[in-house]
Amino acid sequence: MATQQIKNESITRQEDDFAQWYTDVCRKAELMDYSSVKGFIIYRPYGYAIWEQIQAYLNKRFKETGHENVYMPTVIPESLLQKEKDHVKGFAPECLIATIGGGQPIEDRLIIRPTSETLFCEHYAKIISSYRDLPKLYNQWCSVVRWEKTTRPFLRGAEFLWQEGHTMHETEHEARTETLKMLEIYDDLGRDILAVPFMKGRKTDKEKFAGALETYSIEALMPDGKALQSGTSHYFGTDFARAFDITFQGRDGKVAHPHQTSWGVSTRLLGAVIMVHGDDNGLVLPPLVAPIQVVIVPIAQQKPGVIPAAREIYQKYLEAGFRVKLDESDRTPGWKFSEYEMKGVPLRVEVGPRDIEKGIVVLAKRNDGARQEVKTSEMIEASSALLTKIQKEMYEKAYRYLLDHVTEVHNLEELNAALEKGGYAKMMWCGEEECENKVKELTTATARCLPFNQTPFDEVCPVCGKKAKKVVLFAKAY
Amino acid sequence: MATQQIKNESITRQEDDFAQWYTDVCRKAELMDYSSVKGFIIYRPYGYAIWEQIQAYLNKRFKETGHENVYMPTVIPESLLQKEKDHVKGFAPECLIATIGGGQPIEDRLIIRPTSETLFCEHYAKIISSYRDLPKLYNQWCSVVRWEKTTRPFLRGAEFLWQEGHTMHETEHEARTETLKMLEIYDDLGRDILAVPFMKGRKTDKEKFAGALETYSIEALMPDGKALQSGTSHYFGTDFARAFDITFQGRDGKVAHPHQTSWGVSTRLLGAVIMVHGDDNGLVLPPLVAPIQVVIVPIAQQKPGVIPAAREIYQKYLEAGFRVKLDESDRTPGWKFSEYEMKGVPLRVEVGPRDIEKGIVVLAKRNDGARQEVKTSEMIEASSALLTKIQKEMYEKAYRYLLDHVTEVHNLEELNAALEKGGYAKMMWCGEEECENKVKELTTATARCLPFNQTPFDEVCPVCGKKAKKVVLFAKAY
Repeated sequence: MATQQIKNESITRQEDDFAQWYTDVCRKAELMDYSSVKGFIIYRPYGYAIWEQIQAYLNKRFKETGHENVYMPTVIPESLLQKEKDHVKGFAPECLIATIGGGQPIEDRLIIRPTSETLFCEHYAKIISSYRDLPKLYNQWCSVVRWEKTTRPFLRGAEFLWQEGHTMHETEHEARTETLKMLEIYDDLGRDILAVPFMKGRKTDKEKFAGALETYSIEALMPDGKALQSGTSHYFGTDFARAFDITFQGRDGKVAHPHQTSWGVSTRLLGAVIMVHGDDNGLVLPPLVAPIQVVIVPIAQQKPGVIPAAREIYQKYLEAGFRVKLDESDRTPGWKFSEYEMKGVPLRVEVGPRDIEKGIVVLAKRNDGARQEVKTSEMIEASSALLTKIQKEMYEKAYRYLLDHVTEVHNLEELNAALEKGGYAKMMWCGEEECENKVKELTTATARCLPFNQTPFDEVCPVCGKKAKKVVLFAKAY
Repeated sequence: MATQQIKNESITRQEDDFAQWYTDVCRKAELMDYSSVKGFIIYRPYGYAIWEQIQAYLNKRFKETGHENVYMPTVIPESLLQKEKDHVKGFAPECLIATIGGGQPIEDRLIIRPTSETLFCEHYAKIISSYRDLPKLYNQWCSVVRWEKTTRPFLRGAEFLWQEGHTMHETEHEARTETLKMLEIYDDLGRDILAVPFMKGRKTDKEKFAGALETYSIEALMPDGKALQSGTSHYFGTDFARAFDITFQGRDGKVAHPHQTSWGVSTRLLGAVIMVHGDDNGLVLPPLVAPIQVVIVPIAQQKPGVIPAAREIYQKYLEAGFRVKLDESDRTPGWKFSEYEMKGVPLRVEVGPRDIEKGIVVLAKRNDGARQEVKTSEMIEASSALLTKIQKEMYEKAYRYLLDHVTEVHNLEELNAALEKGGYAKMMWCGEEECENKVKELTTATARCLPFNQTPFDEVCPVCGKKAKKVVLFAKAY
């Protein structure tokens, strides 16, 4: 085997500085770059391609469940954003505001959309008049702008890419069902293609979305023990519909307000994938979202027969439908190994003169470094099986980590210890915001969610000693 | 057959008021709606789905030709936009400018992107350093904002959706080849799926893009005789690269500036599809971009057996891969006929009790109203053939119209007459902007392009009488 070189640019080790490791990987795996405006990042081809895989998965699921894509304006008149009071309070501090158009001041100033509830509502008011018009199941792919002070690539940005679903329903039951159905689709996305297991549950009143009656979230757990809210689904009731005067004539002939939901995931999911799976050599990508699933690295490629053999192998992968790359560049094999490890390519195929003679290739798995020889004639089948295996192993590893970091706590000492270890402290809680605030004060942890399994395990809330009513998961979070 | 009802909302007839007909169709076929900000439209599901078909076609072609998708920030610092002088001059008058972020004034004001040359160049300056880094073949799908005074749905808007390709090359030859290659892909898009034939050619200096050395365009011809510029491809030379200090070390070891292109098509293409094919009953959509290709309308659906038979037929179309809709609503068949004619659905399948007895269905073509009975057993094959036929007929009809509206002119009288008739006046021209301006003054027509076929047919320019050098196509335009 060729000598393995150290790549010229190295990355910080996770245990030395996890935050720096993260930023290094984002840049050196060429997922993103900074622009000259703080918090506005450039989604480079390799990062954007992962987002396109997520889009493809969700578009299919959304369409199967009857949703339609639309596109709303990029700007919201200030007066429109102000129509729903809780909502505007939530977003006003982080608005980017356009005040000049075509050289003239704009009277009703334009907010660059931070989210599009108000635009959807204004439109729905015009197109909904009968129960026959319901449900309306719209989704939008776009970018949104939030003027954040502290920003980090993919995790918190002044601009990020997302999808926002906004739906209107005849009944509360139907809207609530939709809210939970979309949460399930997000959960499936994690399990099926990102190899990221999520904690699911309802947000506390303190943590819910501005204007929502109920917010549900999926939360991923990072290797530094912090939770990352990775998607939300909201039930709005009829509050927005009232504020925007959206009504319909029901089956009974009476006029009513429709029930509303919204739900979204963003490029923050890329942050989850990077952190959950990455290691000191860089990215580790789950095969189902990897822009390159298989990279072919010729060894001693200047020797006769190596490049033609590598090309033949490349063609076979291509025809079998893999996302495959052949690197024929004049870099050394060692450089290439490092490069594609940094980029997290799940499977490497090594082809050298002796391999060709023996009629074999070497397959190397990115997730655990395991290498094996396989006959070239069995290479496609073996690779397909290995990719399936890698995907499964990555999910299982992340799932074990998650399970290992949920600690049931019965008092404040245990709460502290659990949060110190990292991950979720599962606690019984009285339900009062005062106690929730107290935990945050003492530990900086926040209530991530009330999990769906609400089986009680304590009589009293460890914070106030009053009757405990709810199971809640606390964690430090991004 | 059921009585054909007049739909409750009718549209203006084309010959009465073509502009009003257009707006009526845009709204009543539910392609778009207005928002409360002038020029910012809502792309409704039916309109957005056509755009998604265009995206799918182009993404495939772009990827086949080695291009990668990226996403750049939605805002451009004013100082950055000003770096290339011709470019900023072209866009400054129509900028939407954000001046407040998070409640504070922004020092370097942010332009909501009207186009992204400057952002790409800033990024390219950072990532290009060697000939090994070239070519860079990037494309972006996004929306852009231009503060226009007069706006019309899809044709001219304050915000529209588009793709913008921005590429960097080692040599002029390679960049020029790219410029023309992308123009060909746009031309293919028209012929292959939109059924819209384009005139192709180079823009005059007066009409070219701000900052480009050469601009090529595809121009579609509308039934009111006006041309619609439907896509452009630019060769920039190295001017932007110089302004943004983009350099690379060449194969010869010398430092040089890369050669640049950009190219784009937008949702304006929807305007072309609507106008080129539409009629007094509404939209007529080419099968390959129609969100619904086949609509099944049950006749006398309250009679036993009709709905089950319609559902069975629906399943067959679905399994055969058609984009199909079954309308079981309690509207009359006549209402449904009008509705799906308005929406331009290429093929209607009628299923009534007598048809079921006879084992047939009735197929009706939207483009010419032709109806035929086919055996249910042969329905799928027949429909497939009919959709192919419709696509072809639509292209041929539009192509015949185009050919019929290119008039060779030899003097100003003939020029006037040709423009009066509508379409292109093909004229020999001295090449001076003065004469180009004079034609515009006299006729309001502009030089649409210098077609690739430059076979001369006159000695002198009919405007000034001096030696003619170029073949040019004049037309009134949107």
